[in-house]
Amino acid sequence: MKVLFFCLKFNLKMKFTMYLSLKNSIVTMVLCLTFSFVNAQQNVSNSQCRYSKTAEGFLMVLREGDNVISSIENLVKEQQIPSGNFTGIGFAGEVTFGFFDFSRKKFNPKTFNKVEMGSLTGSVAWSEGKPSLHIHGVATDDKFNAYGGHILALKVGTGSMEIYVTVNQEKLERKMEQPLGANVLQLPCVKN
Amino acid sequence: MKVLFFCLKFNLKMKFTMYLSLKNSIVTMVLCLTFSFVNAQQNVSNSQCRYSKTAEGFLMVLREGDNVISSIENLVKEQQIPSGNFTGIGFAGEVTFGFFDFSRKKFNPKTFNKVEMGSLTGSVAWSEGKPSLHIHGVATDDKFNAYGGHILALKVGTGSMEIYVTVNQEKLERKMEQPLGANVLQLPCVKN
Amino acid sequence: MKVLFFCLKFNLKMKFTMYLSLKNSIVTMVLCLTFSFVNAQQNVSNSQCRYSKTAEGFLMVLREGDNVISSIENLVKEQQIPSGNFTGIGFAGEVTFGFFDFSRKKFNPKTFNKVEMGSLTGSVAWSEGKPSLHIHGVATDDKFNAYGGHILALKVGTGSMEIYVTVNQEKLERKMEQPLGANVLQLPCVKN
Repeated sequence: MKVLFFCLKFNLKMKFTMYLSLKNSIVTMVLCLTFSFVNAQQNVSNSQCRYSKTAEGFLMVLREGDNVISSIENLVKEQQIPSGNFTGIGFAGEVTFGFFDFSRKKFNPKTFNKVEMGSLTGSVAWSEGKPSLHIHGVATDDKFNAYGGHILALKVGTGSMEIYVTVNQEKLERKMEQPLGANVLQLPCVKN
Repeated sequence: MKVLFFCLKFNLKMKFTMYLSLKNSIVTMVLCLTFSFVNAQQNVSNSQCRYSKTAEGFLMVLREGDNVISSIENLVKEQQIPSGNFTGIGFAGEVTFGFFDFSRKKFNPKTFNKVEMGSLTGSVAWSEGKPSLHIHGVATDDKFNAYGGHILALKVGTGSMEIYVTVNQEKLERKMEQPLGANVLQLPCVKN
Repeated sequence: MKVLFFCLKFNLKMKFTMYLSLKNSIVTMVLCLTFSFVNAQQNVSNSQCRYSKTAEGFLMVLREGDNVISSIENLVKEQQIPSGNFTGIGFAGEVTFGFFDFSRKKFNPKTFNKVEMGSLTGSVAWSEGKPSLHIHGVATDDKFNAYGGHILALKVGTGSMEIYVTVNQEKLERKMEQPLGANVLQLPCVKN
């Protein structure tokens, strides 16, 4: 709407100052409205819902370029999901796996491009007031070879990514455990 | 039952027209009844339940030779599942994966035989009045090597295939999106 | 507590019988109390809850050294789960896959050490009064290569293993089917 308003104002100014012929003015107006329309379309696309409520939780459908981890974190924050787990599939433009080196207490990373996600499996919890995800996956390339492990980063490629989230009503925390050096999902102790 | 009725009618006709001796007639009758019995057995096997209702949806157990995709499509039609997702495992006699070539807008396929399905993950939706499935999987061979991706075809091998379906009550459609050339699950827009 | 009581009793006996000097007695006491403390710690760790109730079933978080199969079997027995299915992820100290040789009716096994479980997928049923699990998985090594299949044994490695269980209220049995030689999940026949 702002762009459209700018278009009208810009064109009116043009006409008043008579720097352009009527014909040029119409061309500018058309170009400006086209830009405004494309811009509006993109806004729809950006604000377009990425998830929908289901019987057990949420269904996410992410699009090319979407950051999968921050998209799930946004869902968790927006819908205040106390905890949960999910599976998923889709096409990744870029996925980075990390294999944890317990002696150095850090992940050795490797990135794969343009791969199918044969499977995505993970859980939702919280840590220090922020969503804390744990995701593993198996990626498959154009030769159908499979690679995988703990996911550090994941971006949707050409196509889409579907995530099926099951919500649990109990708020759970993930906590860095020492001397392990690993982030572990904490369970409330249950009497059997 | 129809076959049995045909047997009796055929044999009676034979006897009335006296083209065959009583002995031949009995042989024909026995052969015909055997065929009828085998046929009935197959009917039992075909109509044998392949799925059962669960708390969240359905459990399918498919048998050797079953086409996994059309079996799930049958479940979706018979039980009018509006949408859903599933995971699964089992032994595949034959699985065909396809890697989408976005420039040619078609799948490059490859078939693997006698492999375990290490994982199956997918979703159920509808497209032009018919069930529309999206399934990814990871297959593992007798050397435990893994291959996978988008599944184009899947037939159960010696053993069985278990599919765990979670049903969602909202009817969802899958739509071919241009210029992407990919079939994308459409979400109803939800206000947060 | 029993160990502690034994320590005190043992030390008092020592003093009374005067076989040991005061110094030796103290050393024994310290060693014994240390053992008692370690033992108590292990008891806490053993009795520490390994699972928690969720909306759809149970969430398990297993720790280093835990046997995944017997841990899930314990959950199934303790909570009397009639049937169900699960997915999961985590770090395996040791996982053994088996590829079924239908001519010999036995599994050819192979063990992988220190691998991420890229995915775990399985089902819960009963057989002859005991829990009967069917689990497939995909393991990924420090080079991110993937291996997998039917899981015969699985032990948690450094870190943890998360299992997300969905419970179904209908009790299901798994039965060895001949001449197949495979253990198949039995469905109750449902009329459509």
